[in-house]
Amino acid sequence: MMEEDMENGRSYQERRRTFATVRSRSSVPLVFRMLMRINPRALIILFLLAFSGVLYVGASTSPIVVFVFCICTLSLFFSLYLTKWVLAKDEGPPEMSEISDAIRDGAEGFFRTQYGTISKMAFILAFVILGIYLFRTTTPQQEASGLGRATSAYITVASFLLGALCSGIAGFVGMWVSVRANVRVSSAARRSAREALQIAVRAGGFSAIVVVCMAVFGVAILYSTFYVWLGVDSPGSMKVTDLPLLLVGYGFGASFVALFAQLGGGIFTKAADVGADLVGKIEQGIPEDDPRNPAVIADLVGDNVGDCAARGADLFESIAAEIISAMILGGTMAKRCKIEDPSGFILFPLVVHSFDLVVSSVGILSIRGTRDSGIISPIEDPMTIMQKGYSITIMLAVVTFGVSTRWLLYTEQAPSAWLNFALCGLVGIITAYAFVWISKYYTDYKHEPVRLLALSSSTGHGTNIIAGVSLGLESTALPVLVISVAIISAFWLGQTSGLVDESGNPTGGLFGTAVATMGMLSTAGYVLTMDMFGPIADNAGGIVEMSQQPESVREITDVLDAVGNTTKATTKGFAIGSAALASFLLFSAYMDEVAAFAQSPFKEVDIAIPEVFVGGLLGSMLIFLFSAWACSAVGKTAQEVVNEVRRQFIERPGIMDYKEKPDYGRCVAIVASASLREMIKPGALAIISPMAVGVIFRILGHYTGQPLLGAKVVAAMLMFATVSGILMALFLNTAGGAWDNAKKYIETGALGGKGSEAHKAAITGDTVGDPFKDTAGPSLHVLIKMLATITLVMAPIFL
Amino acid sequence: MMEEDMENGRSYQERRRTFATVRSRSSVPLVFRMLMRINPRALIILFLLAFSGVLYVGASTSPIVVFVFCICTLSLFFSLYLTKWVLAKDEGPPEMSEISDAIRDGAEGFFRTQYGTISKMAFILAFVILGIYLFRTTTPQQEASGLGRATSAYITVASFLLGALCSGIAGFVGMWVSVRANVRVSSAARRSAREALQIAVRAGGFSAIVVVCMAVFGVAILYSTFYVWLGVDSPGSMKVTDLPLLLVGYGFGASFVALFAQLGGGIFTKAADVGADLVGKIEQGIPEDDPRNPAVIADLVGDNVGDCAARGADLFESIAAEIISAMILGGTMAKRCKIEDPSGFILFPLVVHSFDLVVSSVGILSIRGTRDSGIISPIEDPMTIMQKGYSITIMLAVVTFGVSTRWLLYTEQAPSAWLNFALCGLVGIITAYAFVWISKYYTDYKHEPVRLLALSSSTGHGTNIIAGVSLGLESTALPVLVISVAIISAFWLGQTSGLVDESGNPTGGLFGTAVATMGMLSTAGYVLTMDMFGPIADNAGGIVEMSQQPESVREITDVLDAVGNTTKATTKGFAIGSAALASFLLFSAYMDEVAAFAQSPFKEVDIAIPEVFVGGLLGSMLIFLFSAWACSAVGKTAQEVVNEVRRQFIERPGIMDYKEKPDYGRCVAIVASASLREMIKPGALAIISPMAVGVIFRILGHYTGQPLLGAKVVAAMLMFATVSGILMALFLNTAGGAWDNAKKYIETGALGGKGSEAHKAAITGDTVGDPFKDTAGPSLHVLIKMLATITLVMAPIFL
Repeated sequence: MMEEDMENGRSYQERRRTFATVRSRSSVPLVFRMLMRINPRALIILFLLAFSGVLYVGASTSPIVVFVFCICTLSLFFSLYLTKWVLAKDEGPPEMSEISDAIRDGAEGFFRTQYGTISKMAFILAFVILGIYLFRTTTPQQEASGLGRATSAYITVASFLLGALCSGIAGFVGMWVSVRANVRVSSAARRSAREALQIAVRAGGFSAIVVVCMAVFGVAILYSTFYVWLGVDSPGSMKVTDLPLLLVGYGFGASFVALFAQLGGGIFTKAADVGADLVGKIEQGIPEDDPRNPAVIADLVGDNVGDCAARGADLFESIAAEIISAMILGGTMAKRCKIEDPSGFILFPLVVHSFDLVVSSVGILSIRGTRDSGIISPIEDPMTIMQKGYSITIMLAVVTFGVSTRWLLYTEQAPSAWLNFALCGLVGIITAYAFVWISKYYTDYKHEPVRLLALSSSTGHGTNIIAGVSLGLESTALPVLVISVAIISAFWLGQTSGLVDESGNPTGGLFGTAVATMGMLSTAGYVLTMDMFGPIADNAGGIVEMSQQPESVREITDVLDAVGNTTKATTKGFAIGSAALASFLLFSAYMDEVAAFAQSPFKEVDIAIPEVFVGGLLGSMLIFLFSAWACSAVGKTAQEVVNEVRRQFIERPGIMDYKEKPDYGRCVAIVASASLREMIKPGALAIISPMAVGVIFRILGHYTGQPLLGAKVVAAMLMFATVSGILMALFLNTAGGAWDNAKKYIETGALGGKGSEAHKAAITGDTVGDPFKDTAGPSLHVLIKMLATITLVMAPIFL
Repeated sequence: MMEEDMENGRSYQERRRTFATVRSRSSVPLVFRMLMRINPRALIILFLLAFSGVLYVGASTSPIVVFVFCICTLSLFFSLYLTKWVLAKDEGPPEMSEISDAIRDGAEGFFRTQYGTISKMAFILAFVILGIYLFRTTTPQQEASGLGRATSAYITVASFLLGALCSGIAGFVGMWVSVRANVRVSSAARRSAREALQIAVRAGGFSAIVVVCMAVFGVAILYSTFYVWLGVDSPGSMKVTDLPLLLVGYGFGASFVALFAQLGGGIFTKAADVGADLVGKIEQGIPEDDPRNPAVIADLVGDNVGDCAARGADLFESIAAEIISAMILGGTMAKRCKIEDPSGFILFPLVVHSFDLVVSSVGILSIRGTRDSGIISPIEDPMTIMQKGYSITIMLAVVTFGVSTRWLLYTEQAPSAWLNFALCGLVGIITAYAFVWISKYYTDYKHEPVRLLALSSSTGHGTNIIAGVSLGLESTALPVLVISVAIISAFWLGQTSGLVDESGNPTGGLFGTAVATMGMLSTAGYVLTMDMFGPIADNAGGIVEMSQQPESVREITDVLDAVGNTTKATTKGFAIGSAALASFLLFSAYMDEVAAFAQSPFKEVDIAIPEVFVGGLLGSMLIFLFSAWACSAVGKTAQEVVNEVRRQFIERPGIMDYKEKPDYGRCVAIVASASLREMIKPGALAIISPMAVGVIFRILGHYTGQPLLGAKVVAAMLMFATVSGILMALFLNTAGGAWDNAKKYIETGALGGKGSEAHKAAITGDTVGDPFKDTAGPSLHVLIKMLATITLVMAPIFL
């Protein structure tokens, strides 16, 4: 006994040293360090000055913008409250906090390097955009408003860079809080399940609120700045209905950063995870997150950079892109219908998301600790608690959505239009709910699909994979039906809203789908909270396991982790659903943009033309190739991890008996450098191929006498890529989630339980599912929207 | 020693008995038995009478048809020669022929039941079509030509049933020869590798010639019968340019049967294979095709019903659908350009395929035994020999294609048009070659992709699957680029051919792509021969292994089997490439058909309309769902096999020591009934969903005031399904082929060789790849074309 204690003591010292090698540089970015050096009072004065400036600009634009600014500011204060609350919790005993420190250092180190690379690429792209815009033709509107080439170029580039910056901050905030909350959740798990849940939810809530806030704030500030600067709506200058088109750069910047963040982070997290599992679980038979596994810290770091940082950036760009496209469509419709005050239609998305901030905050606060109601049993199912919060949020969202439509979309030309649009919003909210429910059905082991998948593991690795692939492919059907019904019914509701253009044709259809998209995203804050909850709980479980806490603590974090897995899978369904709707909007915005540039109507994309059909073929192919590269990046990096872990087990035979400490830092370093290298290829493919296709077919069209061919082919490419992307992402996410939970189901003791042959087959499935659900799948969400925004921004070079 | 001999003797007797239980009914279908009972002289007279009748009808139609008839008849005689030659070879020792008998009985038994089910469904569908056509509106042309509803209904139904019958015969012929050739190849392998190769090639060649012949003959007979019967081109009756539209029923019948043949056969073969491998190879560690494995006969039966019968039906319907669509496009173009004698343009596809029969026969004959040239080394790589034959065939095809274009496509209106079309043909031939080369690159272990895949097996099951999936997804890129270039360049060549319509617009574009498709299929006979070679060699190897022949014989059949794997993979690339091109043609034919019915132009499918976009979404989803159901059918059936095999090993512990015989028949019965049950769901989905979507959107369009909405949505569905189907099929085929060969590469001794951990991981990959490459993938080829033909036939109900 004593010897063992002594050994533990020794190994503890050694662990300290090992962790120390992981720690490298100060984790606080330069900007924050500079800010921290300034006198706090001066900071407050600076902040107040900036706020009044912003308010002034907002007030000169529209009272609606002032409302949006106020809600955003209040939400930022609320998020500050949440951080303070979370950070006030204790960090637990030193063995916990030192693990958490190692994770934090690894995550922040990777984040710095990754965003360094991304920002370099962003600057290069900014120069390319600048060049294109300086040498392009201007639209007639711009000429009429005196908006020269140079102004338009600077506006686009500035929006692009601001979008990229905000997307980066969104990612940083997500990771910043998760690396601090994880250990606090572990520590709280020693006291109460309910408290641990509350900390994880509030930490997730903090970054969710900040992300949504930034998206809304950023667009609102850009909008009102341009409004004031360009003197919009004064005679002879730009019309307010054309203003939203200037914002597309912001969306593109956001999706550009999100794409690389998701790719890099996704490759990091899953390469580490797969590598750790293949050697640790399958070859050596040690449990997940066991401190003897050299890749375990890399795995835990991965959860933060892959899930927290990347998902923050992902949802940020989803919301930003969707707000901008809805604003463009609102503007176009208001112009067509000659609505007197179009600002209600244009600013509607900002108001919806302001309300989103409010209702999500209420939802987050509804999840309380046990302090004030001792009667609630501490072993209550956390999933039920989260669902209850979601129900509250959804009900409030329905009410606030109705209020927003009445407030902003009421027009005397069509007095009942707002009611139709409110119904569109309801369609969106129901769609969101249906998506969450379908994902849950296919990935939760309470339902039949995952049980059958687990059963197929009992006949071997092969049947498990076949069953998982079939399950994933099959799971695309219901979401597609839901989205089809949603698109058609929202379009129909919009079309029958009574809004008509000059010649009396109904025109509200597309705006109807836009409103449905907003309805779908009207609870984005709460959904993002549930999503962020997952990796925090996962990390907390890892820290508990690594610091060798008693079984009872592990049980609590295991339950939270399982809930986190389900919420992660369901929110992915939500993300892809909203991406599908948003792309349909961005696609229409693209056609408007092309029509404006080409000064000729661009109303249809006829796939019976061979070149256009080929564009579609190339678009679908892009999705397949991108997924291939994303998966193979994980596979290749995982092989490096496997080889390193095997090497360590051979060179340090004492690891298995806790006599030697593994070199965690090396695994982190290997995964970090490999994932930075591997993210470039798929990322570059996504950015370069639409531009290349557009230019090639533009030239071909020039020689074969087909005007606008480049733009048409790109449009087809975009549409086919969207459709294939939605399906592929659904397939990858669901298959991955189902494999993960089939394994968890077997680990509950079914079909022979842990260590059985069925369990081994299930682990293989889980391994295969990892890059599917956390690298390729989520990257596809971003890719779909990035394709839409890149074609919007690059439209001038296609014609 | 003596005891072992005695045991072998005993087990031999037992084996006899076991095989006897598999044998059930006489294997010769009723029709053949009836024919055999007739006096041979009477038969010859009957045949001559029928032939003169056909010739007379042909002569009244066009001299071109007479030419086609003659070539087809000669080819049928050539195929008779090939059969006689193959059947004259010896069946080897009794232990071989009894295994072969068991395989034959199993295959023929399943074939009978399967085609019984299929023919019932075909008759039901025939009634549905009859009903639809009896109550539909007639087209103005038909009204003008006095072709009433009833006539048109009977014509369509008759073509449908004839197509279905011919497709069934094509499948039967493929299987009939393969179950007879397999044992002859095994027997010849005891003497010489070259002779074994020759037998397998000639047996494959027999069914290839018959399949192509039937496709050409069938269409030609239908065409000339309708021509004579309807008095085409006489004043007041139908125009010859409208005649090909009447043939679509033939194509639909062919693809209907092919779909179920491929699904049922594919599920059978792979469920048996996966089940046999999972228990035999992985759990018990016995080699492939080991007589101790109870599922081994089922596996060998599967090769015949899955690969031979199904591929015969598949290629038959490919050729038939492509001929018909090219005839429709030729007719449409001839009408638009007001070409005086349009029969050249309409009958061009039939002539191309007649030449295909000639050049493929030469190619088949070019593969000779060693008898007449003793200097050739018997261990020459069979792949080289096959490739040499392919090169000869391709070179001849280029020449004959040029001759056909000059003969039939020369018109005084555009004297150089034939040259452009000859170049289109060349584009097609190059495309075919490129497809074959790309498939080879991704699936042959001489090249890097498969080697990397094998390497990834060394880090475990998980990384093997991830690498295989990425490889498959990546392999879609090059074929898509090739097909894109082919479509655009063939269209451009056609467009610049000088053929113009009344208002002077160039119109040859679509016909150019049609000619390219014909160019691609102009070596179909030889390609099908290479394809059929695969399962025959595979079966021969199985018989050699099961009858426990010496190592040297096994080596020969192993080499042939490996070559067969490569040719199977490459011909799949060919099949999907031609399916892609053919669908593009059928799609245009569909638009012509709708325009004719609707009596209004139908020139574009605008995916910017929400309903049309939704149609696309549903089309892509159909592909995913279909693949899911095809794969899961294999998975489920394989699990039944696994459980049965495990049961037998437990209940008869003597099997492993050759002391007891496994019950082969039970496995065959289980797989047969399961695959018949499982083929219904995906098949019904494929047939019902386009009809349902068309009708639903027709109704929706009616209420929302959008004319032709149903037809447009179905068009989008078709296009998106085609694109997704091409990509999905490429992914499934290539991934499956690569996994198979990665395993084979390891079995050559690389990375630890047989029995190593890497080998086990590679077997898992191979198992997963089985349903991908032999069930879902090939079914998708058929599905793509069936969707095109079903929409053509069902067009009346969409508007």
